[in-house]
Amino acid sequence: MPPQTEHRTVEILDGVRQAFAEKGFDGASMQDLARACGMSVGNFYRYFPSKAAIVAALVTRDLTEVEQEFSQIIESPDPMITLRRALQHRIEGECCATEGRIWAEMMAASLRKPEVAEITLQMETEITRYLTIVFARVRGISAEEARLRYGPHASLLVMMIKASSIHRAQAHHTGPDLVALISRTLNHVLDEIEVDGPKGQ
Amino acid sequence: MPPQTEHRTVEILDGVRQAFAEKGFDGASMQDLARACGMSVGNFYRYFPSKAAIVAALVTRDLTEVEQEFSQIIESPDPMITLRRALQHRIEGECCATEGRIWAEMMAASLRKPEVAEITLQMETEITRYLTIVFARVRGISAEEARLRYGPHASLLVMMIKASSIHRAQAHHTGPDLVALISRTLNHVLDEIEVDGPKGQ
Repeated sequence: MPPQTEHRTVEILDGVRQAFAEKGFDGASMQDLARACGMSVGNFYRYFPSKAAIVAALVTRDLTEVEQEFSQIIESPDPMITLRRALQHRIEGECCATEGRIWAEMMAASLRKPEVAEITLQMETEITRYLTIVFARVRGISAEEARLRYGPHASLLVMMIKASSIHRAQAHHTGPDLVALISRTLNHVLDEIEVDGPKGQ
Repeated sequence: MPPQTEHRTVEILDGVRQAFAEKGFDGASMQDLARACGMSVGNFYRYFPSKAAIVAALVTRDLTEVEQEFSQIIESPDPMITLRRALQHRIEGECCATEGRIWAEMMAASLRKPEVAEITLQMETEITRYLTIVFARVRGISAEEARLRYGPHASLLVMMIKASSIHRAQAHHTGPDLVALISRTLNHVLDEIEVDGPKGQ
């Protein structure tokens, strides 16, 4: 993609993300979404024929970011410490103010729209897959073995990060004691992997 | 309330809960909701003038159930063990098939409807308050001190129970390994309270 088109796509996706966060997945009309991007409705439809297509584009972009973040974690000298820091950064919520809203919207929409459910499932499957690759690296086992042994740990981490970002969006603030407790709890889940016996008991 | 009226109210609330779970908070029209209860729209409006009024009625009923469950926990010989069992029961998801859907819907709706946000906040505040009363009983401290010291633990338990019921609704199934890991993690959060020093260090 030429840089200019890519820049325009980033702008458009930021616009629709904001509109979804404000009006909700059902509440935001194609008109609202087009307006949020400074486009005519006709032109907007040429980019995205449906809401599901927009969600797919948002998720594709998010997955690219996730992939880059995990590459850095996996290639770092101590992947477990780098992962712990990345999770800490997320629960402190410095990044991504609208993330909790978007996640709540997508969760609600995926309960009744199979096409959205498929996209969010793909997102979560990819994130848990990257997490198990980190665990494989840390434990010196194959990715497949890590998935079998630590798949639940990866799922729980995703659930907790999602829940804490939604909590922050709802409460507008998560107190420092709660952030510290979530952090201890996430680290405890990761400790299980580090101190696990050779047979994964 | 006379028993017959009460029975009818239970029927109506079950009907609207089902309609919300199927069509979503925005997706279910007052017509859909009335139909789900076998009522005319005019008659339905006499019971509930708005969707927010319905959510308030659902939450009021749920809170009555929550209150009864916590009374049993607090009056039991070992409240901490009884609480651990009650949480285990919830994450195993034997109860309440539509709970995850309803929670996802309410979370999403409360992000853009202040009146729904107020009601869900009230629900969560009451549940965390009951939890800290259990913690006060277990530690032999005042409810106020328990709230200050263990309020974050109560909030995290609510977040995790909510997240696991939504996960179950989305995935249609939570594997036994993940249920066991969630259970260990919840119990670890409760362990912090039981082994906490006298000053709550």
